[in-house]
Amino acid sequence: MSEATRERILEATEALLRRHGPDKVAVVDVARSLGMSHANVYRFFDSKGALRNAIVERWLARVTAPLDAIVAAEGPAGERLHQWCMTLMETKRRKVLDDPEMFRAYQGLIGDARDVATHHLDHLIQMVRKLISDGIATGEFRVADLEAATRLVLDATIRFHHPHLVAETGGADLTPRAEVVIRAILGALAGGVV
Amino acid sequence: MSEATRERILEATEALLRRHGPDKVAVVDVARSLGMSHANVYRFFDSKGALRNAIVERWLARVTAPLDAIVAAEGPAGERLHQWCMTLMETKRRKVLDDPEMFRAYQGLIGDARDVATHHLDHLIQMVRKLISDGIATGEFRVADLEAATRLVLDATIRFHHPHLVAETGGADLTPRAEVVIRAILGALAGGVV
Repeated sequence: MSEATRERILEATEALLRRHGPDKVAVVDVARSLGMSHANVYRFFDSKGALRNAIVERWLARVTAPLDAIVAAEGPAGERLHQWCMTLMETKRRKVLDDPEMFRAYQGLIGDARDVATHHLDHLIQMVRKLISDGIATGEFRVADLEAATRLVLDATIRFHHPHLVAETGGADLTPRAEVVIRAILGALAGGVV
Repeated sequence: MSEATRERILEATEALLRRHGPDKVAVVDVARSLGMSHANVYRFFDSKGALRNAIVERWLARVTAPLDAIVAAEGPAGERLHQWCMTLMETKRRKVLDDPEMFRAYQGLIGDARDVATHHLDHLIQMVRKLISDGIATGEFRVADLEAATRLVLDATIRFHHPHLVAETGGADLTPRAEVVIRAILGALAGGVV
């Protein structure tokens, strides 16, 4: 019941965001759009900041869900790391292509939700670290410095998943270029470069 | 004489840019600050756009001059490519650290000077292509697809030289992370990955 109300509030907030942009994501506007008292919304989100953070978390959770599934799956680590990078790129690209206004609105919100953004980056780092650890365990990868190897994956592929760069390229399909970068990374992980 | 006047106009424009931001870079303001007639400034720059483009070109030429020198130098291609990437990174980083307001002002101007920005990217691509070609000629690199290899270098290192990302990181020293990425790239070029 409680959870359903929370969900309704988030849905209403997203609808306002879509219609009016990030400046309209305030508790009072959301309450009005639901015919609900402010007090009731405040039971779930005790400030505009809390509501914005919840919206950004929800959006990022949709980005990371398929990535978590890849990390949890069976199979060679190299193949899963390849799939993970391509999925991250494709998810960001689809968001720019399918709904550029919402993409920009979320970028605005994320700018004000640094803790959530940092937590998201930590989550990405954990996933890549796990995939590389799996590859070390099976002997697929020869890696001396796990942290440096993890950073390598995220740094070298940022061109394909950083929101600013994806938006700058207008969601162009950079798959062939990403494939080359990922081949170079997998070669480095297998070849004991890091 | 003509060249000296052109230079004085560009110096005055940079001074205005530094003091008042990119919106103040107009022919009329520059003329006033030099005690010169508009007509005289227009002899050198026939529009605000032409003046802005010249300012951006001049700024970018300062970025590329040391890179051109590395491309023209003697020595193993791998070492020069390494030095080229580190120099590009360090130059951008110094610009953010030493003069963040000017860095932002230039970013604003470059946004309006797409042709100049495209020309700059083409110049970077040419330099990397030349370094890789040199390495192929000496047998240092085994590269089947020169264009893909060139893109690999710029894509995989963008984290360290794209103005938005450099500014986002506040000019932090990412040298150790860049070294790992460059090692992976050099491994790919030497190892016939691309």
